[in-house]
Amino acid sequence: MPRHAFRIEYDGRPFAGWQRQDGPASVQQTLEEALRKLEPDMGAVSAAGRTDAGVHATGQVAHADLRRDWAPFRLSEAVNWHLKPAPVAIVACARVPDDWHARFSAVERRYTFRIIARRAPLALDAGQAWRVIGPLDVAAMRKGAAHLIGRHDFTTFRAAGCQAKSPVKTMDEITVEEVPCATGQDIRLHLRSRSFLHNQVRSIAGTLERVGAGAWPPERVAQALAARDRAACGPVAPPFGLFLTGVTYPADPFAD
Amino acid sequence: MPRHAFRIEYDGRPFAGWQRQDGPASVQQTLEEALRKLEPDMGAVSAAGRTDAGVHATGQVAHADLRRDWAPFRLSEAVNWHLKPAPVAIVACARVPDDWHARFSAVERRYTFRIIARRAPLALDAGQAWRVIGPLDVAAMRKGAAHLIGRHDFTTFRAAGCQAKSPVKTMDEITVEEVPCATGQDIRLHLRSRSFLHNQVRSIAGTLERVGAGAWPPERVAQALAARDRAACGPVAPPFGLFLTGVTYPADPFAD
Repeated sequence: MPRHAFRIEYDGRPFAGWQRQDGPASVQQTLEEALRKLEPDMGAVSAAGRTDAGVHATGQVAHADLRRDWAPFRLSEAVNWHLKPAPVAIVACARVPDDWHARFSAVERRYTFRIIARRAPLALDAGQAWRVIGPLDVAAMRKGAAHLIGRHDFTTFRAAGCQAKSPVKTMDEITVEEVPCATGQDIRLHLRSRSFLHNQVRSIAGTLERVGAGAWPPERVAQALAARDRAACGPVAPPFGLFLTGVTYPADPFAD
Repeated sequence: MPRHAFRIEYDGRPFAGWQRQDGPASVQQTLEEALRKLEPDMGAVSAAGRTDAGVHATGQVAHADLRRDWAPFRLSEAVNWHLKPAPVAIVACARVPDDWHARFSAVERRYTFRIIARRAPLALDAGQAWRVIGPLDVAAMRKGAAHLIGRHDFTTFRAAGCQAKSPVKTMDEITVEEVPCATGQDIRLHLRSRSFLHNQVRSIAGTLERVGAGAWPPERVAQALAARDRAACGPVAPPFGLFLTGVTYPADPFAD
C-alpha cells in the first residue's frame, strides 16, 4: 500500500473542521471521498494538524495509503478534479516511505493569525480575518509576545478539553507583522512550534489583541503565563482568522 | 442638500456590477437601499467607476445628496449597519462641496488585476484572483506592459460596446508585481490612468498573461496597440481578478 503525502489548502468556512465526525462535512471526509473516487476501498487520511471548524489552511499536510503507486502529478490532478466544487485543493503531492507519518513525523507547525483593525466591517476579507475596532499598538503586542517565546507550561493558553499529555511546549517564534493596508491595520501573527495545544494560537491571539488595544499592559502576558490557569487567559480569538500555513519534516517530502 | 462622499469596499461576486439595472442586485442599488433607511427620499448615488459584474473594489468612491448634514463618522456607521449582510462596506466618509462629483472631479483611477499561476485550483482566493496554469515570465510581462505606457489610441483594448467618446487615453503606470507565494506565482498588475475604457484593464491583463505564458513575444503588444483593432487583442481576462483600488481627486476629500 504505497503511502502518498499531500499538501492541502482549504477555506475552513463551510467545514466542521479537519476531523471526520457525524454531522456537517469535515475537510478529512471531503478529501477521503475524493480519493475514494479513485480507490473505493481506501482507508482513512491522517493529517499533521486537526484544525477546528472555520480554521483555514494554506499548508496542511496529510497522508493516505493507496493500492496503486500513483505518479504524484497525476494523483493531485485527479484528486483536485474530484474535490470540486469544495474549497479544498491539493497544492503538492509526493510518494513517501511507509513509515513516514504526516502527524508523527512532523517536527514543526506554523500558523498565521490575521487581525484587521478598522471601524468598517470586512467586505472582501470577511471570514478570512478577525476584524477588531482598533487601533492596535503593534510595539506593545511584540513586547507581550516576547514573554511567550521559549519552553513554558502553557496551561493558561490551552482549551479545557485539550488532550495533549503535557501543557509544556516550546514556542520558537511569535512575529507580529503589520502589512500595509489603506483602510486600517492588517496585522499577522506568525507562530512556530514543534506542536501546539488545542486553542493555543487563538488564545494567544486573543490575549495579544487585548495588549494591542491597551486593555492589558504587555507584562500581564507574563503574569498570565506564570499563573498556569485558564482563567488568566485573554478572550479566545475566533477561528476564521487562523491559518495553518506549513508543517516541517526532517526532509521535505515535496522538495522535488 | 448637503453632498456626502464615500469610499467603498465590496466583493463583486454576488453583484451584477456597480450600476443599478433590472434583474440581479447591483452595488449601487444595495448602497442606495441602505441610505434610504436613513433618508427615504434620497435620490441616486454616483460613483467614480462603473465596475462590471464580478469586479471588486477596495477604493470605489461615490457621492450622495442627503437632507441632513450628517457627521461623517455617524453616517458611515449607520450605512454599514444597514448594508449588512451584503459584502459592501463604507471605509471612509466625508462632507464635500455641492459641485464636487465622484466621477467628474476624479483625476485618476487605480486598478489592480490579480493573477495566480499554479496547477491547483484556488481554495482560499477563489473568486478574488484569476488562476492560470503558468508559469509566467514576469520580465517578459514587464516588457510587454512598457509598450502601453503613455498616450495611445487604445481601440484594441476596448470593449465593442464602450461608450467613451475617444479611444485615446494616457496610461501612467502598469507595474507587474510578484508577491511571494508558497504555492505558485501571485502576480499583481497595477494600472493607473486618468480614466479607463470599458474592459481596458481586463483586455490588457489577458494580453499580458499571453506574453507571460510565452505564447506572445512582448513586441506583439506594441503591434496589437498599433493595429487599433479589437481583433488584435489577447483574450479578455475574467472580471473576478479585477479590483478598483483607488480614485484620486485634486484634494483628497477623506484626508481628515
